[in-house]
Amino acid sequence: VSDSGPTSPVVLNRKEIEALAGLESDAFDPDAFAAGAFDAIAEGFVRLARGEVRQPPVLSLDLPEVAGELDVKTAWVRGWDSFCVKLSTGFFRNPELGLPSGSGLMVVLDATTGRPRAVLLDDGLLTDLRTAIAGGLAARALARPDATVAAVLGAGAQARWQARALAAVRPLSEIRIWSRRPDAATQCARDVERHTGVPTRSADSVAEALRGADVVVTTTPSQEPIVPAPLLQPGMHLTSMGSDGAGKRELEAALLRRADLIVVDHLEQSRTIGELQGIDANTVSAPVTLGEILAGERTGRHSDDDVTVCDLTGTGVQDSAIARWLLGRYEAHGAGS
Amino acid sequence: VSDSGPTSPVVLNRKEIEALAGLESDAFDPDAFAAGAFDAIAEGFVRLARGEVRQPPVLSLDLPEVAGELDVKTAWVRGWDSFCVKLSTGFFRNPELGLPSGSGLMVVLDATTGRPRAVLLDDGLLTDLRTAIAGGLAARALARPDATVAAVLGAGAQARWQARALAAVRPLSEIRIWSRRPDAATQCARDVERHTGVPTRSADSVAEALRGADVVVTTTPSQEPIVPAPLLQPGMHLTSMGSDGAGKRELEAALLRRADLIVVDHLEQSRTIGELQGIDANTVSAPVTLGEILAGERTGRHSDDDVTVCDLTGTGVQDSAIARWLLGRYEAHGAGS
Repeated sequence: VSDSGPTSPVVLNRKEIEALAGLESDAFDPDAFAAGAFDAIAEGFVRLARGEVRQPPVLSLDLPEVAGELDVKTAWVRGWDSFCVKLSTGFFRNPELGLPSGSGLMVVLDATTGRPRAVLLDDGLLTDLRTAIAGGLAARALARPDATVAAVLGAGAQARWQARALAAVRPLSEIRIWSRRPDAATQCARDVERHTGVPTRSADSVAEALRGADVVVTTTPSQEPIVPAPLLQPGMHLTSMGSDGAGKRELEAALLRRADLIVVDHLEQSRTIGELQGIDANTVSAPVTLGEILAGERTGRHSDDDVTVCDLTGTGVQDSAIARWLLGRYEAHGAGS
Repeated sequence: VSDSGPTSPVVLNRKEIEALAGLESDAFDPDAFAAGAFDAIAEGFVRLARGEVRQPPVLSLDLPEVAGELDVKTAWVRGWDSFCVKLSTGFFRNPELGLPSGSGLMVVLDATTGRPRAVLLDDGLLTDLRTAIAGGLAARALARPDATVAAVLGAGAQARWQARALAAVRPLSEIRIWSRRPDAATQCARDVERHTGVPTRSADSVAEALRGADVVVTTTPSQEPIVPAPLLQPGMHLTSMGSDGAGKRELEAALLRRADLIVVDHLEQSRTIGELQGIDANTVSAPVTLGEILAGERTGRHSDDDVTVCDLTGTGVQDSAIARWLLGRYEAHGAGS
């Protein structure tokens, strides 16, 4: 050990991270959007499917006294040179102070020495991005190749992110946005059209949003199904990414029963915090993991008429993948790129 | 939320932390040593005893493939304006690379908003310090007021730190260092004498180190008792801080049975990873917490002849306390102080 001590970790703030991730511009280039991050996260899902990931239970601190919570997640992937420890907080009185409820950061540790390599002060940006990319990967693997009409349910930050990720993987001609709050849907549609260049409009009902849609993403915190089974159409792909906690659910059980293929990011999580909560395994098609699909070990859609569903609950391996990808870009280009 | 986003956290490196903590100089001033940090950590122990701390189970990631491990700890204290999330790693092939096995950092979160307030790239320094201060607090509360002869068993980093903390709380005239490795004891004694100004020598045996000692600290990772009961002397105080894991133990069971007072930092931890592992509760004096003693709710030593024992296993509240103290110094003085 030299006198000056081991190398200090890189510290990147949100603006630097946006620039490195190619997200600082409003101009949308589907080929450049988070270029390389799709592959990085796909590799993570493949490793997860192959059992090459160690992911301990989440550390959770509940603070009812201050309406706050903290989660800490980590996942190590065999052979990767780094892994991520992610802190995320939700403090639900923040809006009264003019602050967002959620924040967080990632610490990237060297996988050989355990020493900190980077502190990513991303304030949740990389979580938004890795979540959207999982939706993009699911659509790329499962939606019909000629899918052109997309529907996004919900009008929050993830609705916007998921729309960008869809536009990056399919040549969309139309996007519909539905929300319980029509004003929010209108605003979201405006933002999505500006971000993606794809004609986007708000829909007055879920039925209207889904009519003729080839690919659907649900992004709500609903505890009641918002997509009833009768709205399914042959050839449709649906990704549910809102359900990520006990009691949350966006898809009707009958819809899952009618799906030709059910894909999950993490089977155990899907059963405990995702769409498979309370679903009798005998009544639905045996779930396949997204990693198995992306590895080519399992087939996705068999025909243009198949209905496919993907349930995304969020995994620590996505965090380690996006952090590793970002750090690779930093090392290749520097923070000023 | 303004366009520039919420305030970025303070990032402090190890040198800045050393300076803020008053540890950058070799010259030892017992009154200035970590001034204020003793009170900060004492308050943490008091809050812990009063049930005003929330401390979820540790997140542990074991990586046998790379001989590594990661622990993440946190503790929130009612009414404090910040709390700490500490990452610590041990990667046991690091010495082959010329690096220490252990490293780590602390993230300080705002207790009202959950937003990151500081990233302390202390590389384990604050853990060393808060551990030593707990030893100092135990000695201040439990050793005879006129204690002048100290013995430290073990010759690693904590042996040095504990000696400094003892010298800060008692007017020592002599320190003895014992280690299984005589060379290490000699080197440690040299360092301790330089750091504390107290005449310090290595001892050839535990018995020699303890003969006539008023205050003893054990700092080894031993799994077999290193202090046999017959070495107890009336009026002696012993602090055991090495035992912090399943199977670790530094004090003989018979010694605990003969102690007039047993104090612990955290009763449950003492029973699962500390000196009370496997000890029949009916055979020893009912343990009291250090927080109860420091709060004045329980009496420490009753006479100059009492034998007192304190078992320190390490608590997350110490991390939150030391981080809060350091951040307070930063806010009062700036990093250049």
